[in-house]
Amino acid sequence: MKPSSTFSLILRDVWSGLFLRGMFCEFLGTLLFLFISLSSVLLWPHAEPLSWDSIADEPLPTLDSTFACSPDPLHVSLAFGVSLTLACVCLGEVHLNPVVTLTLVAGLRISPWRAVLLVGAQLLGALSACALLLGITPTALKSNLGVNEVAPGVYLYQALLVEMAVTFQLVLCVQAVTHSKSAFSSVAPAVIGLSVMLGHLVAIGFTGCGMNPARSFGPAVLTMNYHNHWVYWVGPCAGSLLAWLLHDLVLHPRWSCFGDWM
Amino acid sequence: MKPSSTFSLILRDVWSGLFLRGMFCEFLGTLLFLFISLSSVLLWPHAEPLSWDSIADEPLPTLDSTFACSPDPLHVSLAFGVSLTLACVCLGEVHLNPVVTLTLVAGLRISPWRAVLLVGAQLLGALSACALLLGITPTALKSNLGVNEVAPGVYLYQALLVEMAVTFQLVLCVQAVTHSKSAFSSVAPAVIGLSVMLGHLVAIGFTGCGMNPARSFGPAVLTMNYHNHWVYWVGPCAGSLLAWLLHDLVLHPRWSCFGDWM
Amino acid sequence: MKPSSTFSLILRDVWSGLFLRGMFCEFLGTLLFLFISLSSVLLWPHAEPLSWDSIADEPLPTLDSTFACSPDPLHVSLAFGVSLTLACVCLGEVHLNPVVTLTLVAGLRISPWRAVLLVGAQLLGALSACALLLGITPTALKSNLGVNEVAPGVYLYQALLVEMAVTFQLVLCVQAVTHSKSAFSSVAPAVIGLSVMLGHLVAIGFTGCGMNPARSFGPAVLTMNYHNHWVYWVGPCAGSLLAWLLHDLVLHPRWSCFGDWM
Amino acid sequence: MKPSSTFSLILRDVWSGLFLRGMFCEFLGTLLFLFISLSSVLLWPHAEPLSWDSIADEPLPTLDSTFACSPDPLHVSLAFGVSLTLACVCLGEVHLNPVVTLTLVAGLRISPWRAVLLVGAQLLGALSACALLLGITPTALKSNLGVNEVAPGVYLYQALLVEMAVTFQLVLCVQAVTHSKSAFSSVAPAVIGLSVMLGHLVAIGFTGCGMNPARSFGPAVLTMNYHNHWVYWVGPCAGSLLAWLLHDLVLHPRWSCFGDWM
Repeated sequence: MKPSSTFSLILRDVWSGLFLRGMFCEFLGTLLFLFISLSSVLLWPHAEPLSWDSIADEPLPTLDSTFACSPDPLHVSLAFGVSLTLACVCLGEVHLNPVVTLTLVAGLRISPWRAVLLVGAQLLGALSACALLLGITPTALKSNLGVNEVAPGVYLYQALLVEMAVTFQLVLCVQAVTHSKSAFSSVAPAVIGLSVMLGHLVAIGFTGCGMNPARSFGPAVLTMNYHNHWVYWVGPCAGSLLAWLLHDLVLHPRWSCFGDWM
Repeated sequence: MKPSSTFSLILRDVWSGLFLRGMFCEFLGTLLFLFISLSSVLLWPHAEPLSWDSIADEPLPTLDSTFACSPDPLHVSLAFGVSLTLACVCLGEVHLNPVVTLTLVAGLRISPWRAVLLVGAQLLGALSACALLLGITPTALKSNLGVNEVAPGVYLYQALLVEMAVTFQLVLCVQAVTHSKSAFSSVAPAVIGLSVMLGHLVAIGFTGCGMNPARSFGPAVLTMNYHNHWVYWVGPCAGSLLAWLLHDLVLHPRWSCFGDWM
Repeated sequence: MKPSSTFSLILRDVWSGLFLRGMFCEFLGTLLFLFISLSSVLLWPHAEPLSWDSIADEPLPTLDSTFACSPDPLHVSLAFGVSLTLACVCLGEVHLNPVVTLTLVAGLRISPWRAVLLVGAQLLGALSACALLLGITPTALKSNLGVNEVAPGVYLYQALLVEMAVTFQLVLCVQAVTHSKSAFSSVAPAVIGLSVMLGHLVAIGFTGCGMNPARSFGPAVLTMNYHNHWVYWVGPCAGSLLAWLLHDLVLHPRWSCFGDWM
Repeated sequence: MKPSSTFSLILRDVWSGLFLRGMFCEFLGTLLFLFISLSSVLLWPHAEPLSWDSIADEPLPTLDSTFACSPDPLHVSLAFGVSLTLACVCLGEVHLNPVVTLTLVAGLRISPWRAVLLVGAQLLGALSACALLLGITPTALKSNLGVNEVAPGVYLYQALLVEMAVTFQLVLCVQAVTHSKSAFSSVAPAVIGLSVMLGHLVAIGFTGCGMNPARSFGPAVLTMNYHNHWVYWVGPCAGSLLAWLLHDLVLHPRWSCFGDWM
């Protein structure tokens, strides 16, 4: 088969109103989800009555990873969890996370080229969210846009393990509630939102909680800070593939459709 | 058509038991929602054992915007979200927010004169809530009644953008769960409450979180503080119209009933 | 009719297995709900690393109303809300609150003598909960068992108004979800728990949040502290009667069964 | 009957694909639930901007029970509650707690040998979770892995009573939502998660909140700290048996199947 005809085949598969609408939803959903979630971290009222003045008067230290972590982790976790839940409620079936798309490819549920386009839409959404975020950052506050960084004192293999664990539970939850026989499909957005919240409660102290390469990619590009950035791609991908194996081979084995994997 | 006959037409449309009951519910709901939510901000136990005495002994600085922001944002966000959820559960289909009414007018779902009356009832409810709030404010505590103010260091265009964003997600959620084919209509109050909570988690540090012109209007009138008050009308209105466009033109296009918009 | 025959009539009405089981559930539910909720306030980890030692070494000031209020209000509110939700899930239809029973009497839904016995069971449950609470209080910690007290600087009429408001919304919610045509009857425990949580978020800074005369009665008796105790009976009763009037006369008018009220 | 034939009988009962899958789920569920929950306690961002550096530079005191308790109790409670909810959603009907299995044995719902194997799988899961936890603990942070310890100033009988009370409410909730006629069986994971959260809100200040012998067993073995360890077995077992008695004898009496208990 000539490359051009392969390309035209792919194009014919992808060029449908429904899929274009799906791509737009991925873009819009990632944009909304990340803009809302990340801006909840940006500026937050301090306990001290004088905090606002201090922000206005003296510039804060630039690119201070500690500051980005310092809001109440509960606050940040809730914002991420709730905003993902609401994005799922508003936009219907969206992934909003490259590793969720990857799991669907691994399970042969969507074609690879569709996945590439969806992930592209997600990354574009993340970049747009961070650009918008730059727009609302007060100039006095040199923010790092909530970029994910490994906390001091945490080894890289530990960070990788933590990212794997939280993504593992997220993808396990996503598969459990989107499964056709699931008893919880009607509350799927709530379950997935809880899972995202739990991931942040756990991992925010280790790695700032990536769990979603698009979420890590956006701030990293905008702040040009790629330090240990691979951790936030390798960890989630490995965790999601493990979760997929567990789900499709052990919990809900798909031997009957084994031919699919040939 | 003569003005008087137009007026009588409007009066005939509006003068029904059901609509008057709806207006009363809007008034009562806004009153309850705002009174409960705003009083959760008013007086709150401090971590220091001596805080109560200090409130009683020495007067706090008057109209201190910082103090109004200083309770735990999580506490305030939860109070707003939960109280809206409960108001929707108790009173059924209420808007409680002028921009929700505006969206319905834009989508030609209610007539403009009904909308004007409903918004009037909401504003009246907000004023009553703030008057009640004044009644329970301890005299030693010169409160600003939780008036919305742009935080120091935040530009007006940034405040406007944040207000637009949080109202955008709120109205998108409202439309998604009140849509006739929505899978989440049975949990609509919970979803809308979560959306209000999320808005506060995000915007409380930037603008105190308006999201609802009635909520901003009440304290502004009672404390005679109209500084940047237009932001809390323009931002939410723009955000809600954007959300309406997205919903009615893209997510659930209404081309079939295009004639409605003529 | 002779008093003795009236008494025998009452006895015959009350002496049924179902009602005795209901009384036992009221007793057990109030005991569990209050014991769990109040002990969440009793002893809590401080942020300072040395706090535990300081509790063990030096006795805390006796009957210090400030200390009882000082745990994170969010923590206390969540404990009260969740434990009420769970009590309702475990025990089925229970009131656990004298003012809820009062509302049912006002609406002629249960007979006054049954109500008296149910309230008696609730108060007994509250006393038992506080006795158990005394048992688990470390001797070094002179606790006030979470007795409700009006905060310094708050006038009595303000405390009364706040208690009325929070009980008003609680009873409105109870009626809305237990109504026969309610769309939310399947999630009634969750809604009522949210309402209790909201009440605490709002009122904990003013009055410690009574909302439930049984909850206020238990600690007051065990610590012999009846200062302003009437507020916690008059406020909730007034609030619940107002909510009953609103519900039965305006929101869901019962004119058809007007004969009931003769 | 000879021991060997008894053994073969048991083996035949146990050696089924379904039961082996159940054991694997118990192992995996306990591993995931405890790893996620306990690591949320391990490392958490402090309010002070300099906290991360201080962790990296100077070693923290070893086996400091205070530090293990010092994260926000709300944070820990939420992590435990949410992660149990999600484990139940992902894995279906799992116990994840030896006392839940014990209750089923007491009610003659599963055979004792099956229970022994399930509890073994749970304990193995807990040990694996703690071994993984050791792997992600930064070397600078000498953690006690969240081992349960009775707080200073709390007598052992008080700790026992608190453990009994929180396990009592947990097992009551588990029985209420898994009962065949329960109205809440569709939201069982949420209810059980709330119950676990409530237990932590209450007991975290007294005993660190065991409630689950497997959860107490793992860190105790890995840190070789068996001080008062019996409290975390006796308390939960006594509480769960009480809850079982209340449920099976009073709330939903099983007289009809009385023969079962012979």
